[in-house]
Amino acid sequence: MRTTRFATMECPTARALDCIGESWSMLILRDAFQGCRRFDDFQQSLGIPANTLTRRLKHLVDNGLLQKQAYSERPPRHEYVLTPKGQELFPVLVVLFDWGSRHLTPEGTAVSQIDRGSGAPLQSMVVDRHTRTPITVDRVLLQPGPVASEQVRQRAAQVEALWKDVPLPE
Amino acid sequence: MRTTRFATMECPTARALDCIGESWSMLILRDAFQGCRRFDDFQQSLGIPANTLTRRLKHLVDNGLLQKQAYSERPPRHEYVLTPKGQELFPVLVVLFDWGSRHLTPEGTAVSQIDRGSGAPLQSMVVDRHTRTPITVDRVLLQPGPVASEQVRQRAAQVEALWKDVPLPE
Repeated sequence: MRTTRFATMECPTARALDCIGESWSMLILRDAFQGCRRFDDFQQSLGIPANTLTRRLKHLVDNGLLQKQAYSERPPRHEYVLTPKGQELFPVLVVLFDWGSRHLTPEGTAVSQIDRGSGAPLQSMVVDRHTRTPITVDRVLLQPGPVASEQVRQRAAQVEALWKDVPLPE
Repeated sequence: MRTTRFATMECPTARALDCIGESWSMLILRDAFQGCRRFDDFQQSLGIPANTLTRRLKHLVDNGLLQKQAYSERPPRHEYVLTPKGQELFPVLVVLFDWGSRHLTPEGTAVSQIDRGSGAPLQSMVVDRHTRTPITVDRVLLQPGPVASEQVRQRAAQVEALWKDVPLPE
């Protein structure tokens, strides 16, 4: 039920959340980025019940984020590999990791993201691909597109009104 | 049960997902960024059952993402405002929106993110804050920190092995 409602919402964020599924799915994708490919890899990494893992993997395959690849014919065995669509979720995991590191590690650092070239710790920032300007909440407006509903138009106007009197960041 | 397990995992991504809660929570945060503050705003926006909304708002307040602010004393009424910790989730929503726009809008565009200054459409990219180099999957290694478990060390080694023979992107 809920799934259907998210999938039919106009907001791309809502659809993205629906497509990914819930939190386990995101951790399965994290594991896929970190080299897990087989059912047992994921199960060992996540400590997740087999039937839950089966269901989440099926969801991710059905939604085009992972694809099955045979690695043995006799017996028939397959592993799960990120599709290009799945690979494009990497930035989401990077920024979630960063945010969690900043706010949710009171006991100290268990793991950081570092640059493979320099070994320097990475700290993510989201910028516009063309101008390289940081995309901050005070820079973003919504623009209704060709298939926008009245609700989207109202929301875009609401966001515009929020920032009307706030000077642009430099 | 699941919540506890996520919260105690060492991976900051797992903790972030636990802290945010499931998909409804992310959409509540989206609405907060877009100017919703009162229970009725969220309910109207999301079409979510009142008891579900109450539970999700409580989770977000308990986890320090939203805070309650009184706007009326008689009768006592409050609204929900993003905390700094909640505000720092904006980049996650930006990249999710973008990914959803690219992959999940077969019927055309209902809404885009545009720059408030120029009106140009925004396309997000995640870069390192210091070097401004794009953070792509082929650039990131994991480094175990002071409180890393053996499992984290193994995972870091697994990721390093994945990329060992792959040249660095320019």
